[in-house]
Amino acid sequence: MSGNSVATLVTKNPEEGLELAVKLARLTIKAMQPDAEMRKAQRLVYEKEPAQLIAASEVVAVHFRTIAAANNYWL
Amino acid sequence: MSGNSVATLVTKNPEEGLELAVKLARLTIKAMQPDAEMRKAQRLVYEKEPAQLIAASEVVAVHFRTIAAANNYWL
Amino acid sequence: MSGNSVATLVTKNPEEGLELAVKLARLTIKAMQPDAEMRKAQRLVYEKEPAQLIAASEVVAVHFRTIAAANNYWL
Amino acid sequence: MSGNSVATLVTKNPEEGLELAVKLARLTIKAMQPDAEMRKAQRLVYEKEPAQLIAASEVVAVHFRTIAAANNYWL
Amino acid sequence: MSGNSVATLVTKNPEEGLELAVKLARLTIKAMQPDAEMRKAQRLVYEKEPAQLIAASEVVAVHFRTIAAANNYWL
Amino acid sequence: MSGNSVATLVTKNPEEGLELAVKLARLTIKAMQPDAEMRKAQRLVYEKEPAQLIAASEVVAVHFRTIAAANNYWL
Repeated sequence: MSGNSVATLVTKNPEEGLELAVKLARLTIKAMQPDAEMRKAQRLVYEKEPAQLIAASEVVAVHFRTIAAANNYWL
Repeated sequence: MSGNSVATLVTKNPEEGLELAVKLARLTIKAMQPDAEMRKAQRLVYEKEPAQLIAASEVVAVHFRTIAAANNYWL
Repeated sequence: MSGNSVATLVTKNPEEGLELAVKLARLTIKAMQPDAEMRKAQRLVYEKEPAQLIAASEVVAVHFRTIAAANNYWL
Repeated sequence: MSGNSVATLVTKNPEEGLELAVKLARLTIKAMQPDAEMRKAQRLVYEKEPAQLIAASEVVAVHFRTIAAANNYWL
Repeated sequence: MSGNSVATLVTKNPEEGLELAVKLARLTIKAMQPDAEMRKAQRLVYEKEPAQLIAASEVVAVHFRTIAAANNYWL
Repeated sequence: MSGNSVATLVTKNPEEGLELAVKLARLTIKAMQPDAEMRKAQRLVYEKEPAQLIAASEVVAVHFRTIAAANNYWL
């Protein structure tokens, strides 16, 4: 499934970089919790919890920093 | 809507960089919780919670670091 | 009000860099919670909570890292 | 056991980099909690807790950033 | 008082770098909570709380990263 | 005691880098809580708490990032 492969950190622009950062965050959760049903149940929980959404967005911010560096900040 | 596009990380000065960092943090939350009503309800919660505001501002700080690097620190 | 403008990340030395980092952290909170009364009430809470002060100081540490890089570490 | 050795941070692509980041996170936990039974019991707890999975994925994100730099972002 | 001035990030070796990182973390807390009595009371709390000590040590780790870069990693 | 000195961030390979990162994390805790008995009591607590082990491993990850840079990523 193409949604799971990350062949490159290169993206066209910051927006796609942010999408890739979200994807990396999700793949990491998947690596630690391979059970799709469990992940779905957890997702229903954290989507409603501001504190957990904020924590998840920090993970995305760290990945975005990596991706931005990989793209020379899209300069 | 222009408020959702991030075509570049380049800003005129640190202040605009901070604004862009806040925007990136919000776009990330939006990517994870696409339901506008839900986000609004959560926002009403976290705006009143110092702990969550602080956590959110750490996300912004990480994005600001990325943006500052993209702008060669506005030197 | 000059207290709100951040025209440059350049400071004379690490101490002023730390002051600027604290200021950036506060401006971020302000961007997310524009209501001054609310911020004041929250401040009264988090100033007494070690856990929140520590969390806030991590935000400052991330900003200080950015500012230090902007100043070539004041070498 | 090969699963415990990390002779290099070089990987073929971002996907393997993410796998290595997960491995580094696990080796760190192992260094701090050498008792395998304890780790297993804890794992059963955190796998079900979204907040802890998110926290663990931030650790992975930090390691991924290091690994990406080691691989010159796989460019 | 000399304990409050940070004129340079340059240190002789990693050990002194770690000491400076602890000092920066403390100065940050001081900037946010200027009341010495309050800080002392809070210190008595967080010194006994593993979770808060760990959080504080993450702040130190971020500052140590900055200081290490300032010293070209003491190479 | 040699276990407390950190004369260099240079290590032979990533594995030793991870060990040094764990050591830096412990020295930081020691700097903030010099009482050995207290640290031992706290250790018994956090070793059993997945959330605290994860938080501690993030501190290690930040130190590992610094150490990896100091070693040019062992390339």
